[in-house]
Formats: sequence, C-alpha cells, structure tokens
Amino acid sequence: MRDVNEHTITQAVVDRLADTPDPRLKTVVTSLVRHLHDFVRDVEPTFAEWQAAIAFLTRTGQTCDQHRQEFILLSDILGVSMLVDAINHRMPEGATETTVLGPFYVEAAPERQNGADIAGPLEGTPLLVTGSVATVGGQVLAGATVDVWHADDDGAYDVQQLDALGGLAGRARFRTDAQGRFHFWTVMPAWYPIPDDGPVGDLLTATGRHPNRPAHLHVMIAAAGFETLITHIFAADSPWLESDAVFGVKTSLIADFAERPAGTAPDGRAMDRSYRHLAYDFGLKPA
Amino acid sequence: MRDVNEHTITQAVVDRLADTPDPRLKTVVTSLVRHLHDFVRDVEPTFAEWQAAIAFLTRTGQTCDQHRQEFILLSDILGVSMLVDAINHRMPEGATETTVLGPFYVEAAPERQNGADIAGPLEGTPLLVTGSVATVGGQVLAGATVDVWHADDDGAYDVQQLDALGGLAGRARFRTDAQGRFHFWTVMPAWYPIPDDGPVGDLLTATGRHPNRPAHLHVMIAAAGFETLITHIFAADSPWLESDAVFGVKTSLIADFAERPAGTAPDGRAMDRSYRHLAYDFGLKPA
Ligand SMILES: [Fe+2]
Ligand SMILES: [Fe+2]
Repeated sequence: MRDVNEHTITQAVVDRLADTPDPRLKTVVTSLVRHLHDFVRDVEPTFAEWQAAIAFLTRTGQTCDQHRQEFILLSDILGVSMLVDAINHRMPEGATETTVLGPFYVEAAPERQNGADIAGPLEGTPLLVTGSVATVGGQVLAGATVDVWHADDDGAYDVQQLDALGGLAGRARFRTDAQGRFHFWTVMPAWYPIPDDGPVGDLLTATGRHPNRPAHLHVMIAAAGFETLITHIFAADSPWLESDAVFGVKTSLIADFAERPAGTAPDGRAMDRSYRHLAYDFGLKPA
Repeated sequence: MRDVNEHTITQAVVDRLADTPDPRLKTVVTSLVRHLHDFVRDVEPTFAEWQAAIAFLTRTGQTCDQHRQEFILLSDILGVSMLVDAINHRMPEGATETTVLGPFYVEAAPERQNGADIAGPLEGTPLLVTGSVATVGGQVLAGATVDVWHADDDGAYDVQQLDALGGLAGRARFRTDAQGRFHFWTVMPAWYPIPDDGPVGDLLTATGRHPNRPAHLHVMIAAAGFETLITHIFAADSPWLESDAVFGVKTSLIADFAERPAGTAPDGRAMDRSYRHLAYDFGLKPA
C-alpha cells in the first residue's frame, strides 16, 4: 500500500481498519473516514486552511477544564448534540421530550429534601418549581431521582463563578415522594450567552451568529426501568426562543414561569414579595 | 426555528450560517455541517458514544503542547493529511512529489553551512546527504531554503528527548549554492512508531493497527516563485514501506541510503568507518 492518491486513499484507510476487534468501533471509524474524506474532497482545503483547522481543534481541547467543556459547546452550536438527541429519543405519546445536556451538568450535585431552597447566594426573583414524574401511561413514579440546575439572574451558572459563590448553587438532586411529586425553591434563571470567549465564540462571531439561549431550567430524571430523561423547561416569556444558539427549543418544553403576588405560596410558604411559579409534569419512556 | 428533528436540523443549522461575512468560511462550515450530520445519521451514536467522542477529542487537544501535536497525528492516521496533500499537489512532470508534514517540524531550526554535521549528540551510522534543487525544466535554483529534520537511530526526534539532548539536533536549514546544490552530514534515521501513548495510540490499538513509519528524512524546500515543497525521502531498505501508519509513502520518494566503506567520502571528508550516502535531486513546482 503506497502511492495513494485523492481517489484511492479512502479505501486504503478503510482497508487498514480490517482487523478492528470490536465490530461497532469498526463501523463507526469506517463511516467517520468516509464522511471526513468526502468533506475534505468537497471543500478542497488549502494547506493553510488545514493548519487553521488543526489549530482550532487544538485550542478547543485546550479550552476545556474541570468546569468548561468547549467540545460540547462546539457539538451544540453545530446542531450535532440535538441530532444525537433526536436519534436516541424517538419518544412515545406521553413522554416528555428531550433536549441537550449542555456543558454545565455536575455529577456530584448535592442531595436536597423536597421544599428546600437551592438558590444559596444566587440573587433574583424567587421561583417555586412543582412537578411530578409518571410513566407514559400516567402511573406515578415514587423515588425517581430529579437533578436540576440553572443559571442565575445574570445568566451565569455556579460553575462559572465558583470563586465568587464559594461553592455550588442553583443545583440539586431531589427524589420524588410516594405520589411521584417533587418541589423546591430557587431563583428565576435568565437567558444567557453560551461561553463565547473561546474558539467556539470565535466561530459564532465569524459566522455572524449570536451566542444566546432562552431562559431555562435543566432537568435530568432517572428511575429504574426507564430511559433517563435529559431536558430543559424553557420560560415562555424569554427572548431567543426562536433562535436558540444550540437549536434546543421544543414547543412542548416551553412553559409559563407564572408571576405570583406576595402571599401564601402553593407549598404553604409565606412570601412577602412577588415570585414565579413553574408547574410541570414529566413522563418517562420505558427503557 | 424550534422543534427541529433528525430530518430538519441540518437545514436549520445551515440557515443559521446565512450571515457569515466570509464566503469561503460559509462554504466550509456549511459543508462541515452537512457531512458531520450525515456521519451522525449514518452511525446513529448512542448518548454514551457521543460522550466518548467528546472525551476523545478533548483528550486529543489536551495531549498537545509545544512539542506534541496530537491532532496532526489524528489527521495523519485517518489519511486526512495525505488527502489534503494530494488535493493541493497535483504535480507536473519533473516536480518532486509531496507527503505529510508530520508533527515534528520546528520553524526556528538552526541555519547551517553546507557540509555541516547536524547530528550533534545523536548516535548512529554516519549519513551523508547530497542533493540539488531545480525547476521542473531542470534550471538550477540557487539560494533555495532547504529545511531537514529526522529521527535518530532509536527512531526518536530531538523534540521528543530535549532534556536528554540539551537542545535541537538532527535538524537544520541550508541554502543551495550557485549550482543549486546542498549537502550535509548527520546520522541514519531509523523507522519509528508515531507517539502512541496518547489518544491516537489508543485509537490505533483499538482498530488493530500498528503505529510504525518507515525510516525517512524530512525535507522542506522554499524558493521565491515556487510552491514550498514538503516531503520525505524514504530509505529503500526500511521495514513498513508497505504499511506506513500515515499512508505517506510514494514510490518516487523511496531512495537508496547506500552503504559505503570507510575512505574518502564524495565531499572529501576522510571517513574511518563505513557510512551511508543519500543522493537526491528535487524539482520545484512553479507557484
Ligand atoms: Fe443551560
Ligand atoms: Fe517523521
């Protein structure tokens, strides 16, 4: 195998994968080589453009750290994350739709009791979230794990301001009660730009795109025997619902974060100021 | 724009590129999105596979440093580097063929005089390299810049062992004389595995591939009015000529690194031990 040219090289590389022990990996890498080569033949990059691509990918990797995942952002803005999501979640009637995970999920979120206020040092309009988890047939699911995380009223996540906050905030894990319900207090999240001071931000700028996402609450719900649900609930009164930078908005995931006057809240808490209330019921797809 | 699905998302992302100011960037990113989405639709990655891909790319970027370029290695083993090379170098008769740059080029290589020995602390069989640079029509090119770099007899480049060597070695920049000629001494490079202790090595292992490249001398030749030539000369007696890990071997680039007994070398140097001699004449393509 030598003297490959622009027409023969793809098969030469595919042939070299013949001894891949894992058949799934062989399928994936073979497809990657074919599509990647087709892309290269399509655009015919100059050597300088190839060098720029290498530098972009390198910088994207080097922008990642414990609390920043630039390759997820890249996947998000290119629509790859939502495409993977769509392929993996052809949902039955009654199941809550899915959307992107995003780069701000933290595995070790603190466990909290229903009714807790998870805002910590975050400032903003108080927000009560009440919800339930059920099967697509409407049977309540007790003991389901409900992870939630969201930005503050400046659109920043805790992990983007850990030094200022002194720890995690606006993030917790709950369990549904015997009736499949959960509820908690926090503050209203604002719409935000995805982190745009790195290579992904440069790409957005270079392609004339804004980096903004509509206001949302992230929710991840896990229960034995069901597909883990990764989704957001978007605020119906937020800007950017029609042009989310990561293509994540689905109509069924838009809900009222309703304005409520001071008084006794639905969970019995006495509120001396106005607040917001989001009520949303989730349906899980069987595994 | 909301409620994208696996069939509509590609056009939605392409539409979002409508305001890209630079038409070439618009073409490239549009093609990237289409081919990347086709790849995803083809293999239908699970969420766990998508996460593994994100982690692989992240680790590839984080493996890069001043002297290691893991994304170039990835491009090399997937045949992308040779494909870009082939597309950019449809060579006329008389022009030397091109091959991959590789990850070990150093811009600030030391300038040396013709006849210099550039081996420094590298050990191995002495090697005399004599060559010339001409146009495709055979007109000699004086004052051309000839960058050379190569591995040692263990197959390691200087930048992989800077601490042990105390600096660059087996690497220099020459200028052709009035007759378009250059020559220098060094040591015979050995075949070597590309750096395989990172994610690219893991991918090679997982796909049942060896990481080896046949023995070669890297050459980059620049002259005003001509395309810069990036190539190797491969040793005809090396293993791996038929299965170069990066698909870089071309028959026209294979040459004898001829064994010579002790005695007076072609440049007049008195050799008290046997040595090798590579003679190669290069032809440059007009810019
Ligand atoms: Fe978010
Ligand atoms: Fe090399």
